[in-house]
Amino acid sequence: MKARPREAGSTLASASKFLSAIAMLMIPALALSGPAKPAGTPSEQLTKSASKNVARPQVHVEKRTSRYWRVTFDNPPFNIFGPDTIPQLEDVVAQIETDPNLRVVVFDSAVPGYFLTHYDFDPPLSASTDLPSGSTGLHPLPDMLVRISRAPVVSIALIRGRATGVGSELALASDMRFASKEKAILSQWEVGASLVPGGGPMARLPRLIGRGRALEVLLGSDDINGDLAAQYGYVNRAFPDTQLDGFVDGLALRISGFDRQAIADTKRLVDFASLPSDPEIGAGWDAFITSVQRPVAQKNITRLMEMGLQKNPDVEARLGHYTEALGER
Amino acid sequence: MKARPREAGSTLASASKFLSAIAMLMIPALALSGPAKPAGTPSEQLTKSASKNVARPQVHVEKRTSRYWRVTFDNPPFNIFGPDTIPQLEDVVAQIETDPNLRVVVFDSAVPGYFLTHYDFDPPLSASTDLPSGSTGLHPLPDMLVRISRAPVVSIALIRGRATGVGSELALASDMRFASKEKAILSQWEVGASLVPGGGPMARLPRLIGRGRALEVLLGSDDINGDLAAQYGYVNRAFPDTQLDGFVDGLALRISGFDRQAIADTKRLVDFASLPSDPEIGAGWDAFITSVQRPVAQKNITRLMEMGLQKNPDVEARLGHYTEALGER
Amino acid sequence: MKARPREAGSTLASASKFLSAIAMLMIPALALSGPAKPAGTPSEQLTKSASKNVARPQVHVEKRTSRYWRVTFDNPPFNIFGPDTIPQLEDVVAQIETDPNLRVVVFDSAVPGYFLTHYDFDPPLSASTDLPSGSTGLHPLPDMLVRISRAPVVSIALIRGRATGVGSELALASDMRFASKEKAILSQWEVGASLVPGGGPMARLPRLIGRGRALEVLLGSDDINGDLAAQYGYVNRAFPDTQLDGFVDGLALRISGFDRQAIADTKRLVDFASLPSDPEIGAGWDAFITSVQRPVAQKNITRLMEMGLQKNPDVEARLGHYTEALGER
Repeated sequence: MKARPREAGSTLASASKFLSAIAMLMIPALALSGPAKPAGTPSEQLTKSASKNVARPQVHVEKRTSRYWRVTFDNPPFNIFGPDTIPQLEDVVAQIETDPNLRVVVFDSAVPGYFLTHYDFDPPLSASTDLPSGSTGLHPLPDMLVRISRAPVVSIALIRGRATGVGSELALASDMRFASKEKAILSQWEVGASLVPGGGPMARLPRLIGRGRALEVLLGSDDINGDLAAQYGYVNRAFPDTQLDGFVDGLALRISGFDRQAIADTKRLVDFASLPSDPEIGAGWDAFITSVQRPVAQKNITRLMEMGLQKNPDVEARLGHYTEALGER
Repeated sequence: MKARPREAGSTLASASKFLSAIAMLMIPALALSGPAKPAGTPSEQLTKSASKNVARPQVHVEKRTSRYWRVTFDNPPFNIFGPDTIPQLEDVVAQIETDPNLRVVVFDSAVPGYFLTHYDFDPPLSASTDLPSGSTGLHPLPDMLVRISRAPVVSIALIRGRATGVGSELALASDMRFASKEKAILSQWEVGASLVPGGGPMARLPRLIGRGRALEVLLGSDDINGDLAAQYGYVNRAFPDTQLDGFVDGLALRISGFDRQAIADTKRLVDFASLPSDPEIGAGWDAFITSVQRPVAQKNITRLMEMGLQKNPDVEARLGHYTEALGER
Repeated sequence: MKARPREAGSTLASASKFLSAIAMLMIPALALSGPAKPAGTPSEQLTKSASKNVARPQVHVEKRTSRYWRVTFDNPPFNIFGPDTIPQLEDVVAQIETDPNLRVVVFDSAVPGYFLTHYDFDPPLSASTDLPSGSTGLHPLPDMLVRISRAPVVSIALIRGRATGVGSELALASDMRFASKEKAILSQWEVGASLVPGGGPMARLPRLIGRGRALEVLLGSDDINGDLAAQYGYVNRAFPDTQLDGFVDGLALRISGFDRQAIADTKRLVDFASLPSDPEIGAGWDAFITSVQRPVAQKNITRLMEMGLQKNPDVEARLGHYTEALGER
């Protein structure tokens, strides 16, 4: 479809920084085969993430009224989601679940060009796998997502910019999704990097948009614009960018006037008819963790890092193009 | 989104007629706490409904051929559906289930502007709850709807005008739905009045249009026009109003020429893949009955009645607007 | 909707060729009632099919690369699918399941106007029913279809021309479907001929496009063009005919560069969320075999054969029109 970009150096030698990241990713595999402990124990790494976490809030909550909150992702320049984002979002999800007045939450972004995007490949894998399970018994990332879906209040994803990986998965876990025609890009890019997506899209997408379009999104792993996302039902609707905020705010305000119990009781029966079980979501997470440790995935992540993933705006903005460049044919 | 209309008097004092309706709605709650029997026992009320029923047919059956029937709702001015409609429709459903020659039934309306709309709030709740269960063991309203879905013949809803509440639920229980682009409005308005919908849309909508759009329809509780309904799959297709009748009649005539057994055997396997279970539908009805007895719902229904529900054409025609006016923010 | 064409002679007397075909169709029924053995035992018939089979390949495999194959149906003039096609396609499906390098298969057609169409009504029914079960325990036709859906590689149907009956069912069993706006026609025509479809569309269509549109496709039994198929989600997307090949080839090439294990692991979890069980598919096949033996179906097939089914291009090209002409009203 597209020409391959020039590849970065094909050896790892010039990429010492990335090599160490990869060494961290390999922790479980290394542990199995015996030796080679990377500098910094997993728990030290976790602490480092946690302290970085305290230093910079990535998730803001604005209580527009007691009934209507905005939750805004703000981790520039790309709104990457990492293990340090997890406790911050977990805190918000716990409030969403328990606040007695809340009716509706809108998830949006303060970072131009990015709603919320892929998982952070800088921290070692152990920074993710060592996190304690959430209240559902799942890893805290899928745990939060299933709790958002089951919360007794309405969640709406307002998608402007890229919603890739975790960003797409959070949008899919939300009750509704509205996108900018011009500025939204959705994708599950993982298979293009030899990964299996971990936040539930294999369970959610076929139920939402049918098996055929779900497989195109997941196995094509390409960027999907707002119009196609609306045509496929990946989002409820796409609006011209200038109308998106007004529509979502109007809908949220409308719902915020409704009765909390009627919302919760109605949603619970829709949940029964439409939500996957927690073990099905858990199986997706396990498949992701398994996939990320395989050599081909580690090689692909290294190459993407060399190309500029998490650094070069062009790689983040055109991720579907760069994963294609990884491929052998 | 829209300005609030001037509210009717905020006390109930000036609304004696509605107060008595509300008193009837409160029967079960009152019964639990002991005293205060309203004038007219439930069975007297039921008899009154039944006799009114005999006096004015609201559901007409036209047998265009032995194989193709039209079932027309005709309860002007708004095609409201009440406990007195139930035995009339039940009679038709029993014929649909058992007639040996029938292949296809089209549901339509003789009332301009209304396909079929919300439940009647004038009769006491007992007029509904005292009705004997149908053959599925469900209350006769959801009972009829699940029997239409499982009948060995094809049902088609031809939607011109408003299909709200029961009207939307009957359309969703039908096998197919076609709508007028200009003149169809679909809605599940209930959550906007602090009610839970009772006729199965929490079970049917997510299976039909996906969880995201189903939650928008149910929790947004707003009016949906023909084009958006078609875009969402809430109806099969929307046609320019002048073409709707011709299309539906042509499709019904076509199907009427087909073999009854092939239709029934094919439909039965689609049913297996797509219909919710009866207990799931029953849970929705129970949630509706519970919701209608809660004080906030009674207050909202009273306020809507004061605004002109079941009287003022503007309230019936723009129900999504008036439920928004009920809200606190 | 459309005028009835002039009917062929209403007695069977002038149709001796077809009478013998029908006699063969009646084998199982005749066997039950005792006498009347048709010339040629079932196994002789099967051998004849098999030898015809050897003589003319109907399914070609082109290995564009070790990772990306094209499977092309080539049985002019109508790409009819018969018992003699089954072992040829079975051979291809077995390769698809086991080749260690394959990532993606595109199904297309070498016959202008026809992607792949209905089951062959010339051979006796026994030529189909006597075939040994496939590895799933199902009859080999549904067996192959469920194996394509579960294969660890991606399957894409490129639909140009008519995809009716088995053609539609193979497309539905594939992971994705892309159609020509101008030249694709999809249909499940069976109910129009008093048959029940046998290759799984009662299980697959409601899960893919919702109950309402699935029932319209199956019980309306009419021809669906590319645009409507895309609007309904029956195909992923429809493209202008000149762009279809480029898009599908680009997508297949893209996927061919991805990791086999990541594809398989991701698809397996989508399968869990979206595929019907084998017994549900088996029930559809049994319903087809039952339906084809009923007198009304035999009469309709005879009349379609008299009109020119499997001979006259106009009958094959406008099958939805000719089934309507069969109907009584």
